Amino acid sequence: MPFNLSLAGRAAAGLKRSVPAIDRVNGRWLHAGGEQYLNFAGNDYLGLSRAPELQAASEQAARDYGVGAVASPLVVGHQAIHRELEAELCDWLGLEAVMLFSSGFSANQAVVKALLGKEHTLWQDRLNHASLQEAGLLSPARLVRFAHNDMAALEGRLRPSAGLIVSEGVFSMDGDTAPWPELVKLARQSGNWLMIDDAHGLGVLGNEGRGTLDEQGLAPTSVNIFMGTFGKALGVSGAFVGGSRALVEYLHNFGRSYIYSTHLPPPQAAAVLAAVRLVRRADDKRAHLRNLVSQFRAGVAALPLQLLPSATAIQPLVVGEEAATLALAAALKQQGLWTGAIRPPTVPKGSARLRITLSAAHTEADVQRLIDALHSAL
Amino acid sequence: MPFNLSLAGRAAAGLKRSVPAIDRVNGRWLHAGGEQYLNFAGNDYLGLSRAPELQAASEQAARDYGVGAVASPLVVGHQAIHRELEAELCDWLGLEAVMLFSSGFSANQAVVKALLGKEHTLWQDRLNHASLQEAGLLSPARLVRFAHNDMAALEGRLRPSAGLIVSEGVFSMDGDTAPWPELVKLARQSGNWLMIDDAHGLGVLGNEGRGTLDEQGLAPTSVNIFMGTFGKALGVSGAFVGGSRALVEYLHNFGRSYIYSTHLPPPQAAAVLAAVRLVRRADDKRAHLRNLVSQFRAGVAALPLQLLPSATAIQPLVVGEEAATLALAAALKQQGLWTGAIRPPTVPKGSARLRITLSAAHTEADVQRLIDALHSAL
Ligand SMILES: Cc1ncc(COP(=O)(O)O)c(C=O)c1O
Ligand SMILES: Cc1ncc(COP(=O)(O)O)c(C=O)c1O
Repeated sequence: MPFNLSLAGRAAAGLKRSVPAIDRVNGRWLHAGGEQYLNFAGNDYLGLSRAPELQAASEQAARDYGVGAVASPLVVGHQAIHRELEAELCDWLGLEAVMLFSSGFSANQAVVKALLGKEHTLWQDRLNHASLQEAGLLSPARLVRFAHNDMAALEGRLRPSAGLIVSEGVFSMDGDTAPWPELVKLARQSGNWLMIDDAHGLGVLGNEGRGTLDEQGLAPTSVNIFMGTFGKALGVSGAFVGGSRALVEYLHNFGRSYIYSTHLPPPQAAAVLAAVRLVRRADDKRAHLRNLVSQFRAGVAALPLQLLPSATAIQPLVVGEEAATLALAAALKQQGLWTGAIRPPTVPKGSARLRITLSAAHTEADVQRLIDALHSAL
Repeated sequence: MPFNLSLAGRAAAGLKRSVPAIDRVNGRWLHAGGEQYLNFAGNDYLGLSRAPELQAASEQAARDYGVGAVASPLVVGHQAIHRELEAELCDWLGLEAVMLFSSGFSANQAVVKALLGKEHTLWQDRLNHASLQEAGLLSPARLVRFAHNDMAALEGRLRPSAGLIVSEGVFSMDGDTAPWPELVKLARQSGNWLMIDDAHGLGVLGNEGRGTLDEQGLAPTSVNIFMGTFGKALGVSGAFVGGSRALVEYLHNFGRSYIYSTHLPPPQAAAVLAAVRLVRRADDKRAHLRNLVSQFRAGVAALPLQLLPSATAIQPLVVGEEAATLALAAALKQQGLWTGAIRPPTVPKGSARLRITLSAAHTEADVQRLIDALHSAL
């Protein structure tokens, strides 16, 4: 047969992945194999996936619109609930226009593919998410990857008015943020466009949860392209791309995963709309989350592991070797705590880690249990 | 600035797209601008997007699991409801294993990207959907496009054991089906793999709605890769890829839009599960739909337009020029009927058409209104 599906190589290297057998994630609790665990592995940073407001909105939309959008947005899929969500996103972030995608992965693909031809350059932070790296590899543009958050390295490789610089608000496997004031300065000076993927900053950082740019004193309009996802702090799934009206109309015409794909189901759009409204007023949840982050960092500072410098909900403990990382996750599991063991190629070789995520749904006692378990496991 | 976002060229050619202002699609009815239209433009071929069973399942899952999956399937996103859906799909289609994607667009990308290297060839029908064409263009494999449904042309260009042949069950803009017994024979003879994208056949054709292969007397396991979507006859959104356990485990490891993307929301998975259960017992709906198709084809046979040879829910009336197609859609709209005007590049130049879709939600009187309106408009 023409394809080799063997995973023996991956298995031998300790890198074979399989889908874990989980029964149910219920806010801070995770149920698997008849046991209950405290969950420190999801991206539900504000605990909204269980909020009654989102459930109610989803149910109402299923009654008003049905459970599916029945077509692409360009045919008959884009309905009033989608426009309401777009308007709320524009109002929240001060953007001129936005458009909705069924995932952040496909939003990133669509933007890069639609904008960049072979005459362009795409500058990417080396630690950008797989969806961006993949978009870059698939695009005909010249790809330049610069060292993580290294503005001198980026500046040295910029060419005037030649393409797009992309970085993340909060890096998904590291929890640190990019230096956006410097990125904005470099983009303006060089006449290039700038795009933020703020999957993990949106909702968690900034006034009203407007994200990493706001946290760093910048308006969301400081970048040409603002990408955010609905599957992390907003608790649902899907994504949006925003910017000028001209950008969005261009992507309506050339964003292939937008044009040729079924639109977001109305119940999902309605749940996201309810989530945005909650997030804008969730200063108390964000303050609680910040306190948990401080508590966790103070509590594990003495551990013989590298805790990456992160002030966000993503707190990575770098173990190094794959096997040791899996063993640590297993030891925590024994103690009733579920964490994500992240291995290459998701992270660079030699930097396998526990990606511990905190959520406003956690209590101080939950975080203390995690701290104690880490001390006793090591 | 580095990018030219002008749509003037497209506008001049009559090809500029914009998102129509629709308020709500409610089964056979579409509401827009205070008016109500009979909807002949969606893909809800069995009318399931409004089925109370799907709504109830979605609501129950929102209560049991929350409105989002909170992570990738490989972290903690894949929960009991997703496994139940996978099991039901395997049982329905007799497949060994399946996996879920947030859209058919990204499922097609993931499969082609994960399997085909530059040493491979990808044979595609010229009329394959944009998501497949795009996957082919982005893959390093040698791309061979063969004339639509032309088995002699395909056979002439096959090389032994070199890659993947992909075609559609029901062609999305034409409504005709591919000759699957011949495709299976050619794939076996040449030692190549075969993939079906049955987005528009699944649920509509075959015993229990098992799709185009079943309709043509073949088991779904006659192909190596079975791709189906949840946003057409199943009434929701999302997609699956199925085949051998080895294939699915391989894609768990290398399907990037699966690994690096938030999993399907539990309410959506639950709605799809309810849809599959309904579809398996929906012989009455399929029979009603077939009757509407016959009624429509007989009713418009005398029109001075080319009605493509289609026995499925997709009934394309080819007008030719863009402007004339838009004018005909506008005339029907005046009479309270909403149809999709499909223009290049979605369809080949000179073949702009009304893509009329029928649904089991329509009545005979609805179809008669459409026939009468077409006669009076032309
Ligand atoms: C930084 C970043 N961008 C994009 C994505 C993809 O978004 P989605 O999960 O909606 O596909 C993710 C996570 O999955 C991410 O972490
Ligand atoms: C044949 C075909 N394949 C794939 C897709 C993409 O599926 P989805 O809408 O789930 O992205 C579509 C329609 O959108 C289609 O018509």
